[in-house]
Amino acid sequence: MVSSFNFASIPQIIFGAGKLNDLYNIIPKFGNDVLFVIGGSSLDQSGKWNEITTILERKSINFSSTSISREPSPRLIDDIVAKFRNKNLKLIVAIGGGSVTDAGKAVSAMLTKNESIKNYLEGVGNKIHDGKKIPYIAIPTTSGTGSEATKNAVISEVGPKGFKKSLRHDNLIPNIAIIDPELMISSPPSVSASCGMDAFTQLLESYTSPKASPITDTLAFSGMKYISENILLACSNGASDVNVRSGMAYGSLMSGITLANAGLGIVHGLASSIGGYFKVPHGVVCGTLLFEATKMNIKILQKQETEGKLSLRKYAQIGALLLDEYQVEEGKIMEYCIKLMETLERWTKELKIDRLGNYGIDIKDINKIIENAGLKNNPVKLSKDDVKNIVLNRL
Amino acid sequence: MVSSFNFASIPQIIFGAGKLNDLYNIIPKFGNDVLFVIGGSSLDQSGKWNEITTILERKSINFSSTSISREPSPRLIDDIVAKFRNKNLKLIVAIGGGSVTDAGKAVSAMLTKNESIKNYLEGVGNKIHDGKKIPYIAIPTTSGTGSEATKNAVISEVGPKGFKKSLRHDNLIPNIAIIDPELMISSPPSVSASCGMDAFTQLLESYTSPKASPITDTLAFSGMKYISENILLACSNGASDVNVRSGMAYGSLMSGITLANAGLGIVHGLASSIGGYFKVPHGVVCGTLLFEATKMNIKILQKQETEGKLSLRKYAQIGALLLDEYQVEEGKIMEYCIKLMETLERWTKELKIDRLGNYGIDIKDINKIIENAGLKNNPVKLSKDDVKNIVLNRL
Repeated sequence: MVSSFNFASIPQIIFGAGKLNDLYNIIPKFGNDVLFVIGGSSLDQSGKWNEITTILERKSINFSSTSISREPSPRLIDDIVAKFRNKNLKLIVAIGGGSVTDAGKAVSAMLTKNESIKNYLEGVGNKIHDGKKIPYIAIPTTSGTGSEATKNAVISEVGPKGFKKSLRHDNLIPNIAIIDPELMISSPPSVSASCGMDAFTQLLESYTSPKASPITDTLAFSGMKYISENILLACSNGASDVNVRSGMAYGSLMSGITLANAGLGIVHGLASSIGGYFKVPHGVVCGTLLFEATKMNIKILQKQETEGKLSLRKYAQIGALLLDEYQVEEGKIMEYCIKLMETLERWTKELKIDRLGNYGIDIKDINKIIENAGLKNNPVKLSKDDVKNIVLNRL
Repeated sequence: MVSSFNFASIPQIIFGAGKLNDLYNIIPKFGNDVLFVIGGSSLDQSGKWNEITTILERKSINFSSTSISREPSPRLIDDIVAKFRNKNLKLIVAIGGGSVTDAGKAVSAMLTKNESIKNYLEGVGNKIHDGKKIPYIAIPTTSGTGSEATKNAVISEVGPKGFKKSLRHDNLIPNIAIIDPELMISSPPSVSASCGMDAFTQLLESYTSPKASPITDTLAFSGMKYISENILLACSNGASDVNVRSGMAYGSLMSGITLANAGLGIVHGLASSIGGYFKVPHGVVCGTLLFEATKMNIKILQKQETEGKLSLRKYAQIGALLLDEYQVEEGKIMEYCIKLMETLERWTKELKIDRLGNYGIDIKDINKIIENAGLKNNPVKLSKDDVKNIVLNRL
């Protein structure tokens, strides 16, 4: 039986090593006035940005650029929009990690409005964005957030009254995503590790979400297959192997598609809360909490009589995948669940995912973190104490 | 390793029993002047069309309608377009089988042009459509062509110089596909059978296509899982079971997505040729040829030393799926391939898929059929004799 589901459109996807070059033929189809949103320094330092601008100039494409060096705040987006509002831009192109591609998405959406993005953020403002935007192309340079395929841009204001919330509309999905694994080769091990763990978290959370459908299930499963085969290599001796990077890029892309259509769970509920209060990279929060959260979910699901069976089976299915088995035998559900937990714990260690304490998060902060953390589409209801234990174990 | 691939966007999908009702809230978002393209009689006879028009009137939606009783010809599309060109339509909605949803797609694309669709058909005209169209919603009432998710509309002119060719552009993918399995319950066994076989053909051909990617593979696999579980039931005592119909509808939807992105093989190469010369339902042509074509492909692949191994393995993977096994052991490749062939042969018999001879196709027609049949993205090169044998065995 296939239950009811909605599935938003996805971007046109151009995937493969060297595919960045397709960009130059695509831009003129939208018009000749382009704003590039790029990262702080890595694109510049690698010489790639110089290469790109040389080609743009040779092709007589009018472009401006703006650079982002941290997770985008409302102020940052508002400032960029104010600067470029009257430039009659025809296209926004973002090349960078999740912060950059989210910033590009937010700018493309806010250029059609005359007020602060704050007014349109979920749980912050009281307006709903209508989806009108300047066409937008996302080009990720990390394999993590899947932002190249999602309909939301995550915007943070960090501080005591901080938040990490989304601007969201089906129409904010990028028009085109160009995914070129060559761009990811310069990503350092610590970034590849936390981003890869974020992508796996997104896949596992959307796979076990009550909003999952057969289409998100099959895409998430495929994504987890590729990430599990490549995540350790991407952060070690496979870092410069374009095949390894393409496996990670594919998994990350899948995670964007599945999270946009099936939602996320407690790890992202906590990441939203923690990211509002503390300056800690999103991928680190997800990566550090994933094992503990999965352990807690499985523990609670085990106690349930019948209603937990389906979710437990889904965790087991991923444990089986990690064993290169694809069928879950009824009597081996917990065996497979244990395999999943062991693998997540091992990845966390081998990838040296930081503990939250390293970012100044302390036991006295726990209560406010928990208060502000939603369960999202977690497969099982967790008590405040359950959630507290997840975080405590990773301080 | 993930090789390069492109993936076109897909429609916004609204899937589930009773979801037709979402249409009435969606229409006003596009505007109030709608053209409905519907089928010849079944929607009318079932009382469904009366129900729909009553609601449209109650909601004060201005609508016109036109009905299609056969696979669309250039003349048919041109006539509809001429009639509605100056009506300032805001939306086209097609409710019906593949002929109807293809006709709706073609009308939505040709309303922006001032000439015959013939000029834009692949291999017929010499113009390339630019993708400009009136927004289009596809609502299938059969589980077959997957047209609700494809970027092409198949147009036929039947006769000695006949053709069956596509109007195609990435932007012709429907804006929204509403897939309501309840609408499929009235589909008679013979139609459900040929449509279901068409969908499975599309899935298997795109799965084994050299243009396949991990994303089309995983979607095709998922589609074949649901179709194989439901196809016999949908044509027998499960015909009125909405769960069975939803499985078939899901499989058909997947087939549209995968064919649009990975292409098709020799069965559809032949269907294009045969459909230009003879009045025979597209699903019957595909259904009747699938077993013989698969047998021929596997036979030729077996003879190849190394290059055929990957494709053979893919056929084996589907054989394993049919056995409810998911892993292909190296030594059992042919065992699984045989399982696939046996199943296709059994379906052809149990579903009573007509032979081509029943539609007046004779041995003397073979040569012209073969001359006009492209291999498309068949996994292996076939000689003219190979192709001839496929058809001969189903006369």
